[in-house]
Amino acid sequence: MKPLSIEDHLAQSSFEASPPKWHLGHTTWFFETLVLMPRGQNYQPFDANFPYYFNSYYEALGPRIDRASRASLTRPSLEQVHAYRAAVDESMSELLDKQELDNETLEVIELGLNHEQQHQELFLTDFKKALGQQPFFPVYRADFKEDRREALAPTWLEIPAGTHSIGSRIDTFHFDNEGPLHEVHLGSFAISSELVSNRDWLAFMEAGAYTSPMHWLSDGWAWLQEEGIKAPLYWVAEKEAWQRFSLAGLVAINLDAPVTHISYYEADAYARWKGLRLPTEFEWEAAADRFAWGERWEWTQSAYLPYPGYKPYTGPAKEYNGKFMINQMVLRGGSIASPEGHARKTYRNFFHPQFRWQFTGLRLAKDL
Amino acid sequence: MKPLSIEDHLAQSSFEASPPKWHLGHTTWFFETLVLMPRGQNYQPFDANFPYYFNSYYEALGPRIDRASRASLTRPSLEQVHAYRAAVDESMSELLDKQELDNETLEVIELGLNHEQQHQELFLTDFKKALGQQPFFPVYRADFKEDRREALAPTWLEIPAGTHSIGSRIDTFHFDNEGPLHEVHLGSFAISSELVSNRDWLAFMEAGAYTSPMHWLSDGWAWLQEEGIKAPLYWVAEKEAWQRFSLAGLVAINLDAPVTHISYYEADAYARWKGLRLPTEFEWEAAADRFAWGERWEWTQSAYLPYPGYKPYTGPAKEYNGKFMINQMVLRGGSIASPEGHARKTYRNFFHPQFRWQFTGLRLAKDL
Amino acid sequence: MKPLSIEDHLAQSSFEASPPKWHLGHTTWFFETLVLMPRGQNYQPFDANFPYYFNSYYEALGPRIDRASRASLTRPSLEQVHAYRAAVDESMSELLDKQELDNETLEVIELGLNHEQQHQELFLTDFKKALGQQPFFPVYRADFKEDRREALAPTWLEIPAGTHSIGSRIDTFHFDNEGPLHEVHLGSFAISSELVSNRDWLAFMEAGAYTSPMHWLSDGWAWLQEEGIKAPLYWVAEKEAWQRFSLAGLVAINLDAPVTHISYYEADAYARWKGLRLPTEFEWEAAADRFAWGERWEWTQSAYLPYPGYKPYTGPAKEYNGKFMINQMVLRGGSIASPEGHARKTYRNFFHPQFRWQFTGLRLAKDL
Amino acid sequence: MKPLSIEDHLAQSSFEASPPKWHLGHTTWFFETLVLMPRGQNYQPFDANFPYYFNSYYEALGPRIDRASRASLTRPSLEQVHAYRAAVDESMSELLDKQELDNETLEVIELGLNHEQQHQELFLTDFKKALGQQPFFPVYRADFKEDRREALAPTWLEIPAGTHSIGSRIDTFHFDNEGPLHEVHLGSFAISSELVSNRDWLAFMEAGAYTSPMHWLSDGWAWLQEEGIKAPLYWVAEKEAWQRFSLAGLVAINLDAPVTHISYYEADAYARWKGLRLPTEFEWEAAADRFAWGERWEWTQSAYLPYPGYKPYTGPAKEYNGKFMINQMVLRGGSIASPEGHARKTYRNFFHPQFRWQFTGLRLAKDL
Repeated sequence: MKPLSIEDHLAQSSFEASPPKWHLGHTTWFFETLVLMPRGQNYQPFDANFPYYFNSYYEALGPRIDRASRASLTRPSLEQVHAYRAAVDESMSELLDKQELDNETLEVIELGLNHEQQHQELFLTDFKKALGQQPFFPVYRADFKEDRREALAPTWLEIPAGTHSIGSRIDTFHFDNEGPLHEVHLGSFAISSELVSNRDWLAFMEAGAYTSPMHWLSDGWAWLQEEGIKAPLYWVAEKEAWQRFSLAGLVAINLDAPVTHISYYEADAYARWKGLRLPTEFEWEAAADRFAWGERWEWTQSAYLPYPGYKPYTGPAKEYNGKFMINQMVLRGGSIASPEGHARKTYRNFFHPQFRWQFTGLRLAKDL
Repeated sequence: MKPLSIEDHLAQSSFEASPPKWHLGHTTWFFETLVLMPRGQNYQPFDANFPYYFNSYYEALGPRIDRASRASLTRPSLEQVHAYRAAVDESMSELLDKQELDNETLEVIELGLNHEQQHQELFLTDFKKALGQQPFFPVYRADFKEDRREALAPTWLEIPAGTHSIGSRIDTFHFDNEGPLHEVHLGSFAISSELVSNRDWLAFMEAGAYTSPMHWLSDGWAWLQEEGIKAPLYWVAEKEAWQRFSLAGLVAINLDAPVTHISYYEADAYARWKGLRLPTEFEWEAAADRFAWGERWEWTQSAYLPYPGYKPYTGPAKEYNGKFMINQMVLRGGSIASPEGHARKTYRNFFHPQFRWQFTGLRLAKDL
Repeated sequence: MKPLSIEDHLAQSSFEASPPKWHLGHTTWFFETLVLMPRGQNYQPFDANFPYYFNSYYEALGPRIDRASRASLTRPSLEQVHAYRAAVDESMSELLDKQELDNETLEVIELGLNHEQQHQELFLTDFKKALGQQPFFPVYRADFKEDRREALAPTWLEIPAGTHSIGSRIDTFHFDNEGPLHEVHLGSFAISSELVSNRDWLAFMEAGAYTSPMHWLSDGWAWLQEEGIKAPLYWVAEKEAWQRFSLAGLVAINLDAPVTHISYYEADAYARWKGLRLPTEFEWEAAADRFAWGERWEWTQSAYLPYPGYKPYTGPAKEYNGKFMINQMVLRGGSIASPEGHARKTYRNFFHPQFRWQFTGLRLAKDL
Repeated sequence: MKPLSIEDHLAQSSFEASPPKWHLGHTTWFFETLVLMPRGQNYQPFDANFPYYFNSYYEALGPRIDRASRASLTRPSLEQVHAYRAAVDESMSELLDKQELDNETLEVIELGLNHEQQHQELFLTDFKKALGQQPFFPVYRADFKEDRREALAPTWLEIPAGTHSIGSRIDTFHFDNEGPLHEVHLGSFAISSELVSNRDWLAFMEAGAYTSPMHWLSDGWAWLQEEGIKAPLYWVAEKEAWQRFSLAGLVAINLDAPVTHISYYEADAYARWKGLRLPTEFEWEAAADRFAWGERWEWTQSAYLPYPGYKPYTGPAKEYNGKFMINQMVLRGGSIASPEGHARKTYRNFFHPQFRWQFTGLRLAKDL
């Protein structure tokens, strides 16, 4: 896909991130395996080997290549993967045109579309990471703007103690991890109207953020030392000034834009340095109608765990979310890489506390 | 300390566990550094190098040896560490006898005593781990009984939906992580009156527990495969029957005793296999007066995070708990290694989900 | 280059092997840097960043990307690398046509041509390794024949004790590590007229080659256990018979062809099992006129060390060979991947004892 | 053994070095297993488990603990190991007193005595390494002198081209790797009468030894960077001057003493910096009668490989030397840790090129 070269489609930066070609094949495989194979009429699989390449992590759907090897797959070629997408697209069109579809099938198709949107986001964040590891700051698109809205002066939004309904209503599309709707009691708290800016972050750095263990979680300080962390991901000290690598190449730091590409450890340390804290995901959701959000995934002080009464999907999609509910923290909001209309107030994204290649940011909170 | 040999005092099984000699030195150092140095009259440090050996993780209290090196310290000798303890004990006695102590000092001493109890527990669990890695199942004490109470038939204890006070009252000793007391709303749930037994666990194993990814968290299944996990820690297949290594050496599995030395991953997989779940730490605390506990630390489905309004200790003890509130799950209850009177209903222990050398167990819960 | 796809040019199997695109860029860079830059008239570098991509290991020629990252370079594109080659080829043609060249320049050009031949060989062996790590045995060229000559019945060629001239004469092209010509005294020995065949190797395997430590070097047995080695590289047990992955895809084992893709450890263990040994490189060279060679690089029992009186190249090519004279064993002969006319009797190739992706083989020797 | 504490006997610094208690047990086991078990009358093994603890690497003599675990063995206690030694000593005395011993038995006993001497040397070098990794430079013996002889002004000893007899005569004790005696042709060369001194080494360091790749083998430079090597092992920069850790604790550098605790990589880089080279082991042996040696093991430019016609021991001692003939370089001479009378001109010690905890040194050579 423009503006990527054929070779760009193989770029994989790490075990956790996938190359563009794989994202294309995987989202296609999702429709083929969950919709066409069990529900299409006389559907013949495009290629018997493709599930082995493009199954991500579904144990129930058979063996698959080791995740770390996704970049090494020079076969099938991009051309073949595009042919795969075209064939599956056509079969899906036929299915939608010619068959009377039951609710369950429609729901799986809706899931497939939302799944594809998730991978559109990952496509961009993963590819940025892959470009960022190459020398000389290669450009994705020269006119790509990562900072879209400048911060206003922050104010404290106060929320009195009370019980809140958290999670998605049943009558609108949501992933299984957003349900069920349930009551949560929250003490009174305040949450900032704005994200922390690059200007704020530079003040933290000048105050010794990365050189003293004082405000860090123990695991965070160990991580910082082992990785030699000295600034947010993609920040580059050039000619005595910080710049940062973006999808448009190397750009100046915009002091008024929200800081991004920080780990949970960094976000938490910043909050402690200010004598404040991160909001919980429940506080965030309870207050989200009162502030602007959507350009940065925001770290919360909540571990990614099931809601009370959580029910995973049934069938092959059972493994979609539930089996990842350990060792991760909840992100709320959305990012500039999210397709339009994809994020919503109840959306729960999640990430390991040391990871930084999503467009993450932070918003402060405090007890009242 | 009997029945350990001088050499036994150096045994360290892994980065995370400490050798007996180090536990002795560290608990002594705690009193010297937090009580005698700042509050004793004309107290002279026993040895200027000892803080470097025996500081555990307090960044504010100066540099210290790498944790993994604790076993390599053949100097100072055990004899010198015993002399250190005797000297600090004597100075503490003098302090208590001869000085009028303010409340703050009394509180630090109380913390030091509870800290020492925590290390008594660690002393035994860590030493079991060290013995367990040596060949031929060495014996700690031939009459040591790890299984003390046999399971009765389990019943479901039902708790209606409602709001519960969670955490410790302010007027009784507790660690900072047990406060503040706060309200938590819980939906109706049931919790088992008994822990899961070895008999239950063998049924799980016979049903394919360790051979199919079906019920496992993704990280758990990866852990199992990487480590080659096939049974709880210390279980040994000898002559076609499972036995287990205990502090009394190799013993038969007692089918009616609670299973122990399991990871969070195993506990969680067991619960999913039964179509049930682990209780949250809030549910556990809300129901704890209705069941017997105290021989096994029980895994809960709660991440170790601060309570709303959490305030860490001030002064050097600030680093005692707060900086570990990430990447760990909460254990509730206590264990046969806990000194008498040490555990309490509000006590929050915590452990990484893959670790197994504590005397861990599990209790099932379900939504109503 | 046909029959590789654009994506195939990025395939890198390991730290030690390089992707095709890199080989193309590197051999071009060699001419640009060692010939055109210092000796061309008004030569302008094609791209100021390219040396950073394509310098292999020449410390004196500036910084370069980490070797493990060669596969991650989606930029510059293959198209740009081909343009680089075309431009350098043209400048080289001009240089050869229009300038009177001194001997030193001619020697560097001759070195560049031989260097390019070495990389033609690596191109193929490295690419085989990269294909071999992909699923479903992808084909390089369906008509590629790796086994070209079948073994005859081996005979012992006897060489009486005496002094032999070893190394290259000064008046013919050779790499610096082939000189100087010097005298070596050898006791009487016999060397086999034939390489060890797949039939021989299967007999070794049936005798327990890979299951007993008896005949292995200590490091070899440790390597075998850690890597789970059970057969030569690329051997695949399918349907109760061994097959092997070749550049033509999966093929049957040809029992009469020489075994290939074995490590020094395996070669040495085979020889010990037979009560024999590998020849030294001196024995090999002294006897080489009496047997056929050139399809397999042959392991010798000689460490890769400088000949007495060895002088490395001067100038930038100084680092070409000398700095690798440690931790490697000498290979003699050549392989089916060697360009025609590239190998010669005095040629010293070298490889770490655990590596197997060259077309290695073995020939037996014994004392008389 | 004085002056070690009981705990000191457990000190192990790395996978490759062993704790004192293990050396005591292992040398005892050697006599028990190779002499008493097969040749004693009615000998009953001291403890059926001890071979598992104390077999070093003899595959033919049964399974054994992982080498890295030797330090974790708090059982058997030192007291038990001393009892083991006393019992085996007594049985050996009885054997020598009361039985008529055949030549083969006498040879194994002689080997056992030489084996014990080798471990006396390792005992000291390994223990120094273990002490050196503990903080505050603990002292082994305050009067232990590592530097015994000061360097004189070096002269070049010239050896004309010719054929030399290398290796041990058959009629004197030698390890199997010292034979057979054989002829080696050497070109004319010169070898220094003295070892390189600390003064020489400081000049090398001031000339940028550890900061420029210019003179290093490729593997050596990679090792230096990965390990952060900046000086010989045990050198410590204190108060603007280099000191070094010795068995007597921290001492000043004696400029006139031979440099020690250097790797092959460092020795080789030094020689290249001087425009010279290390001697081969053959050159060293051919010239050894003309210079003093014995306080430092001297690196040679020879890989540890079998001599022509090499025959390993038969029986269990077969694994003594031959299986280590790969990936190591030859050391010649001896060291201050060698028991008196242990070293000899034909003695071949060997070490991996990156290791430094032996008392290694270097002597220069050049072609004539």
